[in-house]
Amino acid sequence: MVISTEVKKIARKAREASIQVARLSSEVKERALRMMADGLVDKGEFLLAENRKDLEYAEKEGLSKAMVDRLALTAVGIEGIAEGLRQVALLPDPVGEVIKMWRRPNGLLVGKMRIPLGVIGVIYEARPNVTADAAGLCLKAGNAVILRGGSEALRSNRAIGQILQDAMEKAGVPSAAAQVIPHIEREAVEEMLKMEEFIDVIIPRGGEGLIRFVVEHSRIPVIKHYKGVCHVFVDATAEKAMAIEICYNAKVQRSGVCNAMETLLVHQEVAPSFLPPIAEKLQEAGVELRGCARTRHILPAVKEAIEEDWYAEYLDLILAVKVVDDIKEAIDHIGHYGSQHTEAIITSDYANAQRFLREVDSSTVLVNASTRFSDGYQLGLGAEIGISTTKLHAFGPMGVEDLTTTKFIIYGDGQIRTS
Amino acid sequence: MVISTEVKKIARKAREASIQVARLSSEVKERALRMMADGLVDKGEFLLAENRKDLEYAEKEGLSKAMVDRLALTAVGIEGIAEGLRQVALLPDPVGEVIKMWRRPNGLLVGKMRIPLGVIGVIYEARPNVTADAAGLCLKAGNAVILRGGSEALRSNRAIGQILQDAMEKAGVPSAAAQVIPHIEREAVEEMLKMEEFIDVIIPRGGEGLIRFVVEHSRIPVIKHYKGVCHVFVDATAEKAMAIEICYNAKVQRSGVCNAMETLLVHQEVAPSFLPPIAEKLQEAGVELRGCARTRHILPAVKEAIEEDWYAEYLDLILAVKVVDDIKEAIDHIGHYGSQHTEAIITSDYANAQRFLREVDSSTVLVNASTRFSDGYQLGLGAEIGISTTKLHAFGPMGVEDLTTTKFIIYGDGQIRTS
Repeated sequence: MVISTEVKKIARKAREASIQVARLSSEVKERALRMMADGLVDKGEFLLAENRKDLEYAEKEGLSKAMVDRLALTAVGIEGIAEGLRQVALLPDPVGEVIKMWRRPNGLLVGKMRIPLGVIGVIYEARPNVTADAAGLCLKAGNAVILRGGSEALRSNRAIGQILQDAMEKAGVPSAAAQVIPHIEREAVEEMLKMEEFIDVIIPRGGEGLIRFVVEHSRIPVIKHYKGVCHVFVDATAEKAMAIEICYNAKVQRSGVCNAMETLLVHQEVAPSFLPPIAEKLQEAGVELRGCARTRHILPAVKEAIEEDWYAEYLDLILAVKVVDDIKEAIDHIGHYGSQHTEAIITSDYANAQRFLREVDSSTVLVNASTRFSDGYQLGLGAEIGISTTKLHAFGPMGVEDLTTTKFIIYGDGQIRTS
Repeated sequence: MVISTEVKKIARKAREASIQVARLSSEVKERALRMMADGLVDKGEFLLAENRKDLEYAEKEGLSKAMVDRLALTAVGIEGIAEGLRQVALLPDPVGEVIKMWRRPNGLLVGKMRIPLGVIGVIYEARPNVTADAAGLCLKAGNAVILRGGSEALRSNRAIGQILQDAMEKAGVPSAAAQVIPHIEREAVEEMLKMEEFIDVIIPRGGEGLIRFVVEHSRIPVIKHYKGVCHVFVDATAEKAMAIEICYNAKVQRSGVCNAMETLLVHQEVAPSFLPPIAEKLQEAGVELRGCARTRHILPAVKEAIEEDWYAEYLDLILAVKVVDDIKEAIDHIGHYGSQHTEAIITSDYANAQRFLREVDSSTVLVNASTRFSDGYQLGLGAEIGISTTKLHAFGPMGVEDLTTTKFIIYGDGQIRTS
């Protein structure tokens, strides 16, 4: 019961702090973000020392190399995290913006004013930079945040939390606005997910297992994405050179991320001329192809794709390839096997471009551009707290504005209701 | 296990239908809404007969008079429900609206297009009109809806569902776009709340007990409000006549609803001159006052308010009254005891009006107008599916637009990502 009490104490403090943070001026928030950035750089030695302890522990426990890579901090990496906070400082403050206002027949002036969500719970794995990124974005949008990273990064996350809190206090921001939960037990997460009285939204970031656990246990709305099974559909009228460039970029430029292409759909009319050159280029980059029967008719050396391949988020140099009859089959395939994350069409056909944009039910839909652009920074949101495939106020890459909601503000001059 | 299987079947059909409903033209949706309205009127006799069976059962079971009142349908009531559907038909179609579009330095044109949420689960009590209202609003916004009303209204809800489905089919809308769950067991609700794969959002409407049950059991984000403990703060500079009119309206015009005033806060400077006349007027209307010590100093006959009165949603002709030092104490009181629903300030002071609007953390905040305006229709949303005090994409009265989200649509001309 000790953990339960402590998590509750943290959550209650966050709720109290959120009231003050919501009212901070833009200037105070900007100053705090810059001081947080400076703090991380100034105390880089301390931070690296704490990170080394996590790394030693991780090696002793035999964590995977990928996990250790994500965990490791460097002086350059810390400078990058600090630079991220400085960029967030420069973004426009969303709080208080009145996004709409209209007059009612009775003279009431009704507006919608942007306000912080309140308290945000972020549950994540490995990468300690999330601690600083999430704290910065939440503060910018006037929220308090409760951060619960993975046990393997506990010392690093605690060190970052301490540095950020020191900076916030100096800048006049209550330190409870960004708290790191220091308990590694899973019970701490379960407790957090019950605190609907104190936490408004949960954002989990990590593998599908973590996210399913959070969804199953949370009484608080969860904004999440499970995975990114992203498609590129090369239409009959695609410009061949453009299609090759985009498909190569979407698969190879960075294959371990959620907005990389996992399945390539090719219109039957262009498959014979398009598949051989793209296959060659991808195979040169080390990509393994898995194809449908029609693909293998054109590329006999390609391995056969099985049903699971169409659902797969490889996060690796593997690509499923399917030849489709037409745009309808492409859209239906995406609807059936996709993850509502990001899909692109390569086409020269006006009607098909518009139809794909309208009918594909994914958070980001592109025409003639790489799926890799599905990213808050690339789309111009300034920064990204995550990507949502939950259909709520945020669907797709989420920036600072997506950490706010709106309230109605109403200016009257004595109106009463008569019916 | 039979219920589990059947609810799953309903949910799966709703998901499938949602894909078609999302693509319906505005014309088809409008026609369907008008035919749904006509259907209810044309089959009014059948509907009233089914409703009578519910009423007989309710009487036999000894349900409260208030509950029976909410359950009862009349020919005039049915005409009102139909008229509601016809008004929804006339609202602008939110689906497909591009609410924003900007160009990135690399030439990508990035837009946010309004799309349906997908499948909405509505869980409610008593009033059978919710069945038609929710079905209409969800269809207008391109969603499929699963309706689970209270067991006491099962026959009425099923009859409405059947009439609506017949009309939808005739209009070319898949009938699975609006399904009534025919199981009265609580298990049906529990199953529904686990179907995160098929349902995007849950909207519960009813008493606090029902809503807490839903929040505790749902794996799906819940948009809800528990209660409306609405405040009016009469500031030192309030115009006395206006303050009296508004307070009277907010308490008495309809006392059993969530946007009625439950606590009156009065600035100490005007309490001696304001409290006697408003007390007299309220007491003439049968309102019982419960006051703080300072209130009772001015109105000695008033009963003493205890701590619970400040948290109370009376939904009745009872009012808690507190004299406060200043606007800060009023805002703090609202923050501590309020329900983030609706609050009003009556003032002639410019700075206090702006401060109240900014600092009060409720979904609707008014200056010099009655709390009773916190209602989707009154605010110009055209109709209302409910009021949210969940801070997500909707906070406050929710109209058709709040049953949508946005996706990113991106027009490129061959852009690939290089970093």
